[in-house]
Amino acid sequence: MTIAVPLGYRLAGVHCGIKKNPAKPDLALVVSDPPAAAAGAYTQNLVFGAPVGWDRKLTPCGGIRAVVVNSGVSNACTGERGDRDAAEMARLAAATVGGEAKQALVMSTGVIGTFLPLDKIALGVQAAFAALGQDGDSLVAAARGMMTTDTRHKLAGRSLLVRGKSIRVCGMAKGAAMIGPNMATMLCLVLTDAALSPAAAQEMLSGAVDETFNCIAVEGHMSTSDTVLFLANGAASAEQPAGDDLAALRRAVLETCTELAIAIPDDGEGVSHLVTIDVKGCRTRQEARQIAKTVAESALVKTAIAGADPNWGRIVSAAGYAGVPLDAGKISLKLNGFPLYQRGAPVTFDAPAVSQSIRGNRQTSIELWFGEGDAQCRFWTTDLTAEYVRLNADYTT
Amino acid sequence: MTIAVPLGYRLAGVHCGIKKNPAKPDLALVVSDPPAAAAGAYTQNLVFGAPVGWDRKLTPCGGIRAVVVNSGVSNACTGERGDRDAAEMARLAAATVGGEAKQALVMSTGVIGTFLPLDKIALGVQAAFAALGQDGDSLVAAARGMMTTDTRHKLAGRSLLVRGKSIRVCGMAKGAAMIGPNMATMLCLVLTDAALSPAAAQEMLSGAVDETFNCIAVEGHMSTSDTVLFLANGAASAEQPAGDDLAALRRAVLETCTELAIAIPDDGEGVSHLVTIDVKGCRTRQEARQIAKTVAESALVKTAIAGADPNWGRIVSAAGYAGVPLDAGKISLKLNGFPLYQRGAPVTFDAPAVSQSIRGNRQTSIELWFGEGDAQCRFWTTDLTAEYVRLNADYTT
Repeated sequence: MTIAVPLGYRLAGVHCGIKKNPAKPDLALVVSDPPAAAAGAYTQNLVFGAPVGWDRKLTPCGGIRAVVVNSGVSNACTGERGDRDAAEMARLAAATVGGEAKQALVMSTGVIGTFLPLDKIALGVQAAFAALGQDGDSLVAAARGMMTTDTRHKLAGRSLLVRGKSIRVCGMAKGAAMIGPNMATMLCLVLTDAALSPAAAQEMLSGAVDETFNCIAVEGHMSTSDTVLFLANGAASAEQPAGDDLAALRRAVLETCTELAIAIPDDGEGVSHLVTIDVKGCRTRQEARQIAKTVAESALVKTAIAGADPNWGRIVSAAGYAGVPLDAGKISLKLNGFPLYQRGAPVTFDAPAVSQSIRGNRQTSIELWFGEGDAQCRFWTTDLTAEYVRLNADYTT
Repeated sequence: MTIAVPLGYRLAGVHCGIKKNPAKPDLALVVSDPPAAAAGAYTQNLVFGAPVGWDRKLTPCGGIRAVVVNSGVSNACTGERGDRDAAEMARLAAATVGGEAKQALVMSTGVIGTFLPLDKIALGVQAAFAALGQDGDSLVAAARGMMTTDTRHKLAGRSLLVRGKSIRVCGMAKGAAMIGPNMATMLCLVLTDAALSPAAAQEMLSGAVDETFNCIAVEGHMSTSDTVLFLANGAASAEQPAGDDLAALRRAVLETCTELAIAIPDDGEGVSHLVTIDVKGCRTRQEARQIAKTVAESALVKTAIAGADPNWGRIVSAAGYAGVPLDAGKISLKLNGFPLYQRGAPVTFDAPAVSQSIRGNRQTSIELWFGEGDAQCRFWTTDLTAEYVRLNADYTT
């Protein structure tokens, strides 16, 4: 699928020397020629990287001209010097287009506790500025500049017609999924050439993140650096969409985020199954998500799926300790469509057939019903394989 | 170490045919000749086994004459039939000593969603009753009767003098640690020949469990069946200890529980490190435990230790998402005594030396300070190895 770069944006990805391999880009620069409205969603970790602190103070806001991202060093757990370095990185990016530091947002991912090599980043920003483009190659280069241990770059996009004008949404993400430098940081940048106020952009982004990036789990270890940024520069149309048009744009942003979010657990080395968990019949969406997250983070559930073992007791019991009030006698469960547990009692089932359906498919479906209400949540996770452990057991030394 | 069986108790462990291997006991019976005060502590999982429901309704109470335990089938997720089966198992055990069902407590561990084979259990209770003894062999046989995938039985005990009379405390536990039938259920039975009221026994047990069994984690998956029972039958002295004597008994129970609790993570196949996490300088013990538990359950922390990787960013960042308010600028960390992070900033350290200290010792020590107050918590966990995943990926099929 060809993904169109929204109007008014120019992008580049270059190697500036943070990563050892010169074939791997480690810096991405995105410039918006019209000043853009910007929104952000960030890690809830109280130990957060300096770039998160910088962006969180600024967004939602207008007037953003540049986003700069580096991979290899996360600038987290770096104290006050880290804060100064993040500000300097923003200043360098904004200066390329004659802007002030506060007109640039920054993202960093990589090793924790190491200071940013600002000399390399300064040269990298210059090189990236010289390389800026609006074609597909520039988009891919920028997406590759934010990668750490991702095996492939992650891009998604949608186009839609609003009052006869074509509007584009495109997003890039990095997610190290099962393995990652320290903790599988997730970064994402979504761009649109629609016009939105900062508040409207923030509301649209928060809604999309709630259903996508907040509904994926790999090992449940919350990063210091998770960041999703959303820019809307109005280059395609200065008029803010409203009503059905706004809903269509919202859907395009949601679909873009959904594709990118699923791509993260799907990309872990060591992952042999992408698991979709549908929790239904809850009182509230928040409760449904809490149950889904608890099942998604159970090492016993994840190892069972890696082994194609229809061990439904692990799934039902994980739901039971999610901290959500429930009646154990009303729980039902399907695995890959096979009913295994109904209204609190076991069902006789063909275990070899269920096992074969897990073994034979990369995707596994878990459906849970609670009979408490109408709220539901879809969540994505991975299995847990011995390869995951091997990859994560020796990262920094 | 020789562990004395407290006076007034008789024990046995036998094979009744639930496990396939006839050399492995699968049923334990403990009889108290004087009716005993009994206390219990149970899983908080809302999906809990029928035996948990039976015991929870009865304890704290007096008049207990028997405890019967089976391994191989957990009688969890078995609906109303499971409740009837647990009551029948209690009736069978109590009947051996001429008591009523409510004078017996029951524990079951093993596969979820399978009904108890009551015919086998009835014969097993009879055989165990015929084999009851008060010697060390009987104690070991009972401890082995509750094992599932444990590689060794777990016993601990203390003796103390109270007003010139010898008082004994002894405990047995099973904990499948890293691997287990479905979810690593933990069962424990502590016996003393001191006299205690049901309320005093419950208070003493709850205090000990809070510092021991509630401070261990393997993979954070809460079992349907976790149970700790405590019996006090007064066979050594009919007088209830008070003051310093009560404190000495409390300490003996705590030490017994501590030994047994640590033995659980220490016994997992696939475990290469037993990890002690000391969280200090918190506002409350509850907050200290919440942080310790979050670090203990991080797959990224656990894989790093398996790989002897001093990846302190994973530890500090896990503390940051524990849900406890904290000032990231005040966090300090030592790993095996080496300072790695001080007051929110990285410390230069000899990474190969720290790595070697992890690789060369089965025990790993993590110490975290938060500078918020005087409360602390000690917690025990394991590393996460590829062997764990291999063992858990294919259990029921």
